[in-house]
Amino acid sequence: MKTAEKLYEGKAKIVYATEDPNSVLQYFKDDATAFNAQKKGSIKGKGEVNAEISAALFQLLEEVGVPTHFLSLEGPRELLTRKLEIFLIEVTVRNRVAGGMAKAFDIPEGTVLQTPVLEWHYKSDACGDPLMNDDHIQAMKLATPEEVEEVKRLTWIVNKTLIEFFAAAGLELVDYKLEFGKDKSGKIYLGDEISPDTCRLWDMKTGEKLDKDRFRRDLGKVEEAYQEVLKRVRER
Amino acid sequence: MKTAEKLYEGKAKIVYATEDPNSVLQYFKDDATAFNAQKKGSIKGKGEVNAEISAALFQLLEEVGVPTHFLSLEGPRELLTRKLEIFLIEVTVRNRVAGGMAKAFDIPEGTVLQTPVLEWHYKSDACGDPLMNDDHIQAMKLATPEEVEEVKRLTWIVNKTLIEFFAAAGLELVDYKLEFGKDKSGKIYLGDEISPDTCRLWDMKTGEKLDKDRFRRDLGKVEEAYQEVLKRVRER
Repeated sequence: MKTAEKLYEGKAKIVYATEDPNSVLQYFKDDATAFNAQKKGSIKGKGEVNAEISAALFQLLEEVGVPTHFLSLEGPRELLTRKLEIFLIEVTVRNRVAGGMAKAFDIPEGTVLQTPVLEWHYKSDACGDPLMNDDHIQAMKLATPEEVEEVKRLTWIVNKTLIEFFAAAGLELVDYKLEFGKDKSGKIYLGDEISPDTCRLWDMKTGEKLDKDRFRRDLGKVEEAYQEVLKRVRER
Repeated sequence: MKTAEKLYEGKAKIVYATEDPNSVLQYFKDDATAFNAQKKGSIKGKGEVNAEISAALFQLLEEVGVPTHFLSLEGPRELLTRKLEIFLIEVTVRNRVAGGMAKAFDIPEGTVLQTPVLEWHYKSDACGDPLMNDDHIQAMKLATPEEVEEVKRLTWIVNKTLIEFFAAAGLELVDYKLEFGKDKSGKIYLGDEISPDTCRLWDMKTGEKLDKDRFRRDLGKVEEAYQEVLKRVRER
């Protein structure tokens, strides 16, 4: 179904055209980057882990009413997905303080948040994905107020669902990044991927980090962490 | 009325206790800082200009229903104000792109915003006053949702009023920073100052900058710009 035409190559995935103009094939690479691509490397087997975890989570989310771009797992590291026009807005959800929020506000990593935090970030490598708010989105015409509300509504369903799913796998969902887009009709779908590349996942018993922070922060056992998450997701 | 007790010395003002525990005396200095105090200097006469402009604008805002901390102009650079507990949130309103927003999103300075932008910034010199959103305010317990709504409501009245006032003086209100606080009863008041230190003001005919950017960016004629704004405010 995949054609030779490469539509886009990102930091972690390559998107190919298919014979169907409304769908694309996403090829998950082992390439890993961090700190806006200042740090580069590779995590062996990551593409397969992330493709399979994403496929499982997209199917789970469809069941609770979140439209996703997922159509099928076509190969060990290939997802067939709906073709979307992705909003230039990244959605970050934080259930516990870590990473960028710890740094920005000088709050100790691990601080529990009484209420979860939803952040918009401008999807721009050149700008370093800066934080933005609803007013910036309107002023910069990145989405309509109705689209913003729908993305928020879906995000809170995603958060509840994923927290519960990962908790049953002994993993705390600390924070994560989502991307949404719309099809030609304007319907909004969850896109991109959901994986240890885009989620912070801490072992609920040991507190061990089982996500890309092992690569970012040179914590070792990087491949093992990805495989461990895959194993636990498969067991659910 | 002022006592010897200095309660707080900031970058541009010194706050003294008075005989009344519910009011303080704000002394406006000529000291000027920029870029989170990495750049330091002095603007001759600035304290007097900013005290008089602030007094005039606080009185104007009281007339349109915005409670302010202003009580009286006690001297050429001394304002008697209500004693407030200031929220650790700075409010920035942007009517045109400049400064931090131009830099963060790589948008040319001067770009007109179809809809104004209200930003919250965490009032923390150590953190560099980072942008934050409503969820951060709740999670960090910096204000209640009701307080946030009241601050927003008052801010939009301030914006409409100040845009019109400055336009009548031939000045475009590009952006500005406000601080709000509450008294012992919990009533919310506009605090701090409103001056060429805290507003970007561009001459509507020539586009000339008549504000602290002349100091920040070494544009020359700094004192003259402050005096020009005072002159136009007095003529209104």
